[in-house]
Amino acid sequence: MSQGEFDLIARHFTFPASIGRWPSEGVGDDCALIRLSERTLAVTTDMMAVGTHFLPDVSPRTMGRKALAVNLSDLAAAGAEPRAFFLSISLPERDDAWLAAFRTGLLEMAERYGCALLGGDTVKAPEGAPVSLSITAMGEMPAGEGLTRAGARVGDDVWLTGTTGDAYAALMIRTKVWRDDKGVLARLAPRMDDPTPRVAVGCGLRRFAHAAVDVSDGLLQDLGHILERSGVGAVLEWDACPKSEALRAFSEEKCRRAVLGGGDDYELLFCAASEDRARVEALARETKVPLTRIGRIVERGLRVVDREGEEIPVGSFGFDHFAS
Amino acid sequence: MSQGEFDLIARHFTFPASIGRWPSEGVGDDCALIRLSERTLAVTTDMMAVGTHFLPDVSPRTMGRKALAVNLSDLAAAGAEPRAFFLSISLPERDDAWLAAFRTGLLEMAERYGCALLGGDTVKAPEGAPVSLSITAMGEMPAGEGLTRAGARVGDDVWLTGTTGDAYAALMIRTKVWRDDKGVLARLAPRMDDPTPRVAVGCGLRRFAHAAVDVSDGLLQDLGHILERSGVGAVLEWDACPKSEALRAFSEEKCRRAVLGGGDDYELLFCAASEDRARVEALARETKVPLTRIGRIVERGLRVVDREGEEIPVGSFGFDHFAS
Repeated sequence: MSQGEFDLIARHFTFPASIGRWPSEGVGDDCALIRLSERTLAVTTDMMAVGTHFLPDVSPRTMGRKALAVNLSDLAAAGAEPRAFFLSISLPERDDAWLAAFRTGLLEMAERYGCALLGGDTVKAPEGAPVSLSITAMGEMPAGEGLTRAGARVGDDVWLTGTTGDAYAALMIRTKVWRDDKGVLARLAPRMDDPTPRVAVGCGLRRFAHAAVDVSDGLLQDLGHILERSGVGAVLEWDACPKSEALRAFSEEKCRRAVLGGGDDYELLFCAASEDRARVEALARETKVPLTRIGRIVERGLRVVDREGEEIPVGSFGFDHFAS
Repeated sequence: MSQGEFDLIARHFTFPASIGRWPSEGVGDDCALIRLSERTLAVTTDMMAVGTHFLPDVSPRTMGRKALAVNLSDLAAAGAEPRAFFLSISLPERDDAWLAAFRTGLLEMAERYGCALLGGDTVKAPEGAPVSLSITAMGEMPAGEGLTRAGARVGDDVWLTGTTGDAYAALMIRTKVWRDDKGVLARLAPRMDDPTPRVAVGCGLRRFAHAAVDVSDGLLQDLGHILERSGVGAVLEWDACPKSEALRAFSEEKCRRAVLGGGDDYELLFCAASEDRARVEALARETKVPLTRIGRIVERGLRVVDREGEEIPVGSFGFDHFAS
């Protein structure tokens, strides 16, 4: 959820806390955590449309796979184990071939993560309207556990799974904004089309990490969500931020924009006490997911520094459906 | 969910039952029931668009109220107590006045039924696209309880809350298909704009009713869902079917189409053993909702009969986004 969207929802849809009988937290985060007496449920919802979240020529199989993956990524950020999802699709016309391919992608992802499709709705969109869909995914974990964006503490390390920027670079090449002089699209494209939700890492983190977010809007913007909710600041070390070899084919300026502001990464960004570095490293070995320490939590502000500690100017990188 | 939609989902999205670790039933019904060890969750999802589910000039407040009401009606059909919902909205432009009014309607309904908004997503729709939204609502009940469409037995009574047909008649008048010679629109319109989810009735039914459905596609079509899932038939008595006084202003033919095929009613249709008539009548007194016995479950077929037991021919009344 980008900041502009968050504002929109926070402004209009923050209802009185007195409504409802389920104790909850994390509302406005990647997931809402519902604290039942015997277990914690994590629930997330994402709406996606061809043309906004997917290129107009996206294959239905890719769309099915990714649509579920981005919701599983939200569950991962809460530390939840995926259990079930609900799907609504708006289609301008009934197209069985499209639906069959979409289903294949969806099923691949559902099987891989043990997340059952338990319900749905289909509506006919007006002619010419893009295919759009909404998924609500549910996960669970033991009572009392679960990660939110709140909870980062001064002195915490800031960690990142995998690398960021690749999906953005693939999008820039595909939309002809960047020239692919070195022919790296084939290596970048899977990061855009087939993101890997970091479910095992998220589940491993929930017992000791202080805060987590999934990087969907861009590293800086999503880190900003943690900082805002936790009431702290951060310093990021640009040289420590992991960059894929394919992304290094581009200029430093493009790299920076992609890594820090790209979005669509579905990596986990999390904060943990420096005493827990060995636990984080053990989790990296166990899950075979690279985990990199990219900065630390400070009292206020958000700065990106080079190896000499000099500040690197960064624009307001990020993505907001309503901002432009 | 209309039959055509159901086919679409059943055909493409029935995944292997082996996926997932939550025992579930009712998938494809009004709600999926998730059987946790200590409680049963009911979850439903509905997608709605202006122009398809709402008239183009619908007020945002009405839309907010009704969007949640139709989901609460699904929870009622499962016998669940509403707890939480998640909202996704697709808007062609950011319109704060629209959102504020929509919120007012949504909040009215959320407060009335104690259903908390715990999360959401907002996306920018392409210019000219209609406002559309998706709500996923969650309710709960004690472990082992909960109603589905399966379970109707030969000899059961068929019951209905309130009256059907009014919302359809209001729609026909507003779209100039029917002439409102007797000026009854003002009495019919609230049934279209402000349906009452039958939550208390649903909760009261869950301990003894055999099957239930909410009437959203039309009485015959939704009864057909129960018959199909339960593997039984039914005989409905036309004269026993309740009709509002306002609806009686129209011809017998129009009445029949509205009452049996109209849809958008959000009444509960349920089946219960004839030994339980006193319990149903007690529930009607307790909830102050009229409950009318309109037929009985038989071995096969679906017939509507007059007071002499003669069959009344009915077309395939109902509504299907993809059928036409």
